[in-house]
Amino acid sequence: MTAPYTLILLRHGNSDWNQKNLFTGWVDVRLSDQGRAEAKRAGQLLAESGLLPDVLHTSVLTRAIQTADIALEEADRLWIDVKRSWRLNERHYGALQGLDKAETLEKYGPEQFQLWRRSFDVPPPVLADDAEYSQVGDPRYADLPDADLPRTECLKDVIDRMLPYWESDISVDLKAGKTVLVTAHGNSLRALVKHLDGISDDDIAELNIPTGIPLVYRLDENLAPLGAGEYLDPEAAAAGAAAVAAQGKK
Amino acid sequence: MTAPYTLILLRHGNSDWNQKNLFTGWVDVRLSDQGRAEAKRAGQLLAESGLLPDVLHTSVLTRAIQTADIALEEADRLWIDVKRSWRLNERHYGALQGLDKAETLEKYGPEQFQLWRRSFDVPPPVLADDAEYSQVGDPRYADLPDADLPRTECLKDVIDRMLPYWESDISVDLKAGKTVLVTAHGNSLRALVKHLDGISDDDIAELNIPTGIPLVYRLDENLAPLGAGEYLDPEAAAAGAAAVAAQGKK
Repeated sequence: MTAPYTLILLRHGNSDWNQKNLFTGWVDVRLSDQGRAEAKRAGQLLAESGLLPDVLHTSVLTRAIQTADIALEEADRLWIDVKRSWRLNERHYGALQGLDKAETLEKYGPEQFQLWRRSFDVPPPVLADDAEYSQVGDPRYADLPDADLPRTECLKDVIDRMLPYWESDISVDLKAGKTVLVTAHGNSLRALVKHLDGISDDDIAELNIPTGIPLVYRLDENLAPLGAGEYLDPEAAAAGAAAVAAQGKK
Repeated sequence: MTAPYTLILLRHGNSDWNQKNLFTGWVDVRLSDQGRAEAKRAGQLLAESGLLPDVLHTSVLTRAIQTADIALEEADRLWIDVKRSWRLNERHYGALQGLDKAETLEKYGPEQFQLWRRSFDVPPPVLADDAEYSQVGDPRYADLPDADLPRTECLKDVIDRMLPYWESDISVDLKAGKTVLVTAHGNSLRALVKHLDGISDDDIAELNIPTGIPLVYRLDENLAPLGAGEYLDPEAAAAGAAAVAAQGKK
């Protein structure tokens, strides 16, 4: 197989905690009914486009895995190979995990709130290991050295832990000519798009990836994009990106 | 990790074609609502038992994958590693695929019917490559050499193609100390149990594995069973096995 290679990115949809307006991060919440419907629609878009993945890469968080399973079932591709990695997880939100977004905004003010949400290199305060929403002791990270298990992350941290997986696993499948589907999260996909499109540290905060709409890249033999990534439903994507940008502002 | 090792076998539940009483084989039908409920119950049994799989092996048929996904979601283990292989598929039923079981029984008589269903080494007639329910051209087998793609199989054929995967993949995970879940089909699991329990060619036809109930083996360092396999719900398993044995007799 030769270039162009095809990469499909899919951000999971609405979860139980999105609906409650809580910071989620690495807390393993599930898709809401709305999120399941978004995943099903994503699968229909894949099927209609004829862009059928040969291999799936997901995070180890249930909401991303559910999204992939629902979409692939809809596209009749549930049988493709699957690889999961914590390196595709959402950003760890540190001590904010489990907190109400509106209350946090009110308590700390819009400047601090926006810094935690969108600064490139300022992480939220660390989450204590004995806190309710800590991932210390979670069996899915049992093989991860303790020093690699985040207690908080900024976007720069996400990029630093995501890119090695891009190099070691996703790139390899792409160069083997496989159509690759990555189902993940707002910030791990932001990190990947930053890398692909060469977006600056200052500008990446403005990139809002909508949920549930496959984003397709055609890549050359060096895995450089042959053009802008294209959403399979551009109108819904524009509306979705605006909705994400408005989050936490209520 | 050292022995005993833990192996959990799970046969998928009721599918759309079970309900219609059709021979299925490699035709990629989906679980019925009843089958989904069985899978959910299997996940509850896993969670209640505390027997939590570290890795999943499935066939490439949707009904086995759905069973695994539903059960693992219920047991909160959707994030474990997954490997799929055509070698865990159901027996290929040859020219019987898609035929009504009761009509086939009436047309060919009970002797021929039972020979096709339960003989060790007599396969049904081959399925033509241009037949409606042929798997020739199915993208999930694109990497499989044409000579390996079955057009019909007896149980002996299933054993011959399943055992290499047991050796190359399942055994390796077990010896690494992982609790292994295999979700598969009546005949691929029959082949595996025959191997584990040393059941003779003559006796294996009498073994009926019920659907949707995890069957747990503890294995020694050579992967020999330390006792009989145990169903997590023995009463339901006995009733289920009787129901399977009675299939096609209506």
